[in-house]
Amino acid sequence: MSDATAKISASTAAELARLARAASRKLVKLSLQTRNSALLAIADKYESESEAILKANAADCAAAQELVRSGTMTSAAYARLRLDNRGVSEMAGRLREVARLPDPLHRTLAATELDEGLVLYKETCPLGVVAVVFESRPDVVPQVSALALKSGNAILLKGGAEAARTNETLVTLWKESLLPFEEIPQDSLQLLHSRGDVMELLQLDRDVDLLIPRGGREFVEYISRNSRIPVLGHGEGICHVYVDAAANLEKAISITMDAKTQYPAACNAAETLLVHEKIAGEFLPRVVSKLQSAGVEVRGCPRVLALARSASIKPASEADWSTEYSDLILSIKIVGSLDEALEHIHRYGSQHTESVVTEDAEAAQRFLEEVDAAGVFHNASTRFADGYRYGLGSEVGISNGKLHARGPMGMEGLTIYKYKLVGSGHVVADYAAGKKSFRHRALPPRATMEKNGNGAPGAT
Amino acid sequence: MSDATAKISASTAAELARLARAASRKLVKLSLQTRNSALLAIADKYESESEAILKANAADCAAAQELVRSGTMTSAAYARLRLDNRGVSEMAGRLREVARLPDPLHRTLAATELDEGLVLYKETCPLGVVAVVFESRPDVVPQVSALALKSGNAILLKGGAEAARTNETLVTLWKESLLPFEEIPQDSLQLLHSRGDVMELLQLDRDVDLLIPRGGREFVEYISRNSRIPVLGHGEGICHVYVDAAANLEKAISITMDAKTQYPAACNAAETLLVHEKIAGEFLPRVVSKLQSAGVEVRGCPRVLALARSASIKPASEADWSTEYSDLILSIKIVGSLDEALEHIHRYGSQHTESVVTEDAEAAQRFLEEVDAAGVFHNASTRFADGYRYGLGSEVGISNGKLHARGPMGMEGLTIYKYKLVGSGHVVADYAAGKKSFRHRALPPRATMEKNGNGAPGAT
Repeated sequence: MSDATAKISASTAAELARLARAASRKLVKLSLQTRNSALLAIADKYESESEAILKANAADCAAAQELVRSGTMTSAAYARLRLDNRGVSEMAGRLREVARLPDPLHRTLAATELDEGLVLYKETCPLGVVAVVFESRPDVVPQVSALALKSGNAILLKGGAEAARTNETLVTLWKESLLPFEEIPQDSLQLLHSRGDVMELLQLDRDVDLLIPRGGREFVEYISRNSRIPVLGHGEGICHVYVDAAANLEKAISITMDAKTQYPAACNAAETLLVHEKIAGEFLPRVVSKLQSAGVEVRGCPRVLALARSASIKPASEADWSTEYSDLILSIKIVGSLDEALEHIHRYGSQHTESVVTEDAEAAQRFLEEVDAAGVFHNASTRFADGYRYGLGSEVGISNGKLHARGPMGMEGLTIYKYKLVGSGHVVADYAAGKKSFRHRALPPRATMEKNGNGAPGAT
Repeated sequence: MSDATAKISASTAAELARLARAASRKLVKLSLQTRNSALLAIADKYESESEAILKANAADCAAAQELVRSGTMTSAAYARLRLDNRGVSEMAGRLREVARLPDPLHRTLAATELDEGLVLYKETCPLGVVAVVFESRPDVVPQVSALALKSGNAILLKGGAEAARTNETLVTLWKESLLPFEEIPQDSLQLLHSRGDVMELLQLDRDVDLLIPRGGREFVEYISRNSRIPVLGHGEGICHVYVDAAANLEKAISITMDAKTQYPAACNAAETLLVHEKIAGEFLPRVVSKLQSAGVEVRGCPRVLALARSASIKPASEADWSTEYSDLILSIKIVGSLDEALEHIHRYGSQHTESVVTEDAEAAQRFLEEVDAAGVFHNASTRFADGYRYGLGSEVGISNGKLHARGPMGMEGLTIYKYKLVGSGHVVADYAAGKKSFRHRALPPRATMEKNGNGAPGAT
């Protein structure tokens, strides 16, 4: 292990990215079977070497305890850093789950007969090289690396300094597991080590195709503004629950409670509750009492304050509507109509996840169509917005942007397509001269070109 | 017409973008029928008002002739600016073609039953607001505006100053045609007027979702580096034709000639010919003679020079391999293997379009899989890389990047998806507590939620 570590530390980010690019040229050639077998081998390795992982993690935790004591690390962050035997088993389980997922590569998205003997295929392929910068959770290492390997991408990882020993061990064991697979280059997974590496990384648009920052809002915004590599991520999660005039109150209460209290630090937790005026009188006292019993600080618009007549509700300021509390605080606003709710969401929301509670199908339909967000939910908690819960196996990140991938990004976010055109000497001059003309006939989805060994037909 | 013009000129780019954002909220609600009827109405209007269009164009052309005389405008650019009756008919024809294309919206890309009564739909939707900055061709106005309207997007356009009168007339007639369609906001199409507008536009990431620059390499690079809005475009088209050892020489010659000479100024024209050494002796003299007869200047690597022994072949310098000539110049290199060809393409290519000529199925397969480019062609000219030829109706631009859209971008590039989750009071706490567990069952593609009036089921 020490040799590999020394080699990594001595390399610059630019050198590692070049190696990753070279590795990515080999990854596109891997069969599905090789990719899956490798994932299973890594899962086995993690379980058989769990002691080494836990030992490294214990060292990280010991150092982190100092930070907690001195107040530079929160106990929540410490909890995320800490691994136990069950955590290692879960890592291995996730790897095996990714192995079971359908192949994201070599899928024919469209096939068009342009003319006799001239057929265009639009086929999925890897992006190439992906970089992920994340904070202290070490389980991110195997999760995103597995999604990258399965989708044929090389990956550069930069984790938090607090988890350095754990991450290093996870990567070293990963590479050791790959040794028997000669076709899989060792350079397909690289660990970056310093802030300086990340700064250097931002300029490497020639060798890195996508950068995914996972962290706080300021961090993500800094990366987005300073990167020459395309960035996908989310700075903020300002999610709303809108309780419509025709809401079922039981559902509205349990969804509000879940969206706010089940895990308030998550980006998909609700920050603001919008309540239709028609139902406010009946709904608000009940939900406020429940929220306050659960320790939630409630802040209300003037109408909420007037209605609730409770000294324990604080007035919400303009800033509240655009604040991600990430804590047990909820702002509540009464709106006069669905339209006013939509307007509020478009003005203050972060296009993350928005939920409507209503029994009125038309209102639900309008909300789902008209709200411009990655996730639009009807009678369900915002907390469902998550790659695992969506059935994507895992997630490499969450995107609030609207290009390429939106919401929780699974493997599909690490793929793109290429156009393959197969002819027999076809030239454009014949069409320009009117000697030939285009047919543009869509071929049935599965009547595609014979596959190479890489993508088993129908594997998806 | 003068009122509308005055109003447009008085507004800043930021104001226009805000109006476009507001318009986009209404566009998402339009039925397919309304969008198509509007396109047909605009097509009719262009034909019935062709005199007004041609008159405006004549004024632009008169002013442009001065520029051609003074040498500040090329005659090729002048030719692209000029419209005649046939040009107007073609504009109308393209609009009708877009009306006939399937609806890109409300398509269910995936449906997953997460649990009983909890179903996740991944459905296509518009990006929102798109901006296109282009040069002097006025036919870009109706083409990209039609793709935007059909895909439910508001659009900001900035054309070349030389075509200002023509573009203004096309936009005014467009808006006049929309007057009877009360649901379609006039602000869904906006014309920007100055370079200052474009500079201002680059900062408007809150109100503009995508920026597509169409122009020369330096222009596109400037925009990409200075925009806070995501940019899709292509700076360069350095395309290769690789003639493999097992090539059919007739096909190789006609593809080379087409790729270089059919329209050398196009980005999908070939700049470099790679020839396998085994076939070079037979192929090179024939293709060089043909190329030179067609007025092509040939530049060769040392092995080409030695083989051709023709004084009329100039030596190619290192710079030649990374130059987009956009002219009747071709560099030729002899390679020892398919691997060397792949390496050359990855080193010097611009990921635009790459073609292999071979009768060897395995070599073709390797080329199509391993070359990392938007278009990978087998026995076909690189010149086929085009939205119209691909059957996309038209194109809003071409992307050399690997995120979101790759190659010629049709309407699909103007759409993204949202996740719609429909439950009946579902909360995450039940799953976290182990009371419920996820099913993650993929539903058959068309067994989707009942559609609203917007997207006719099976319309795609």
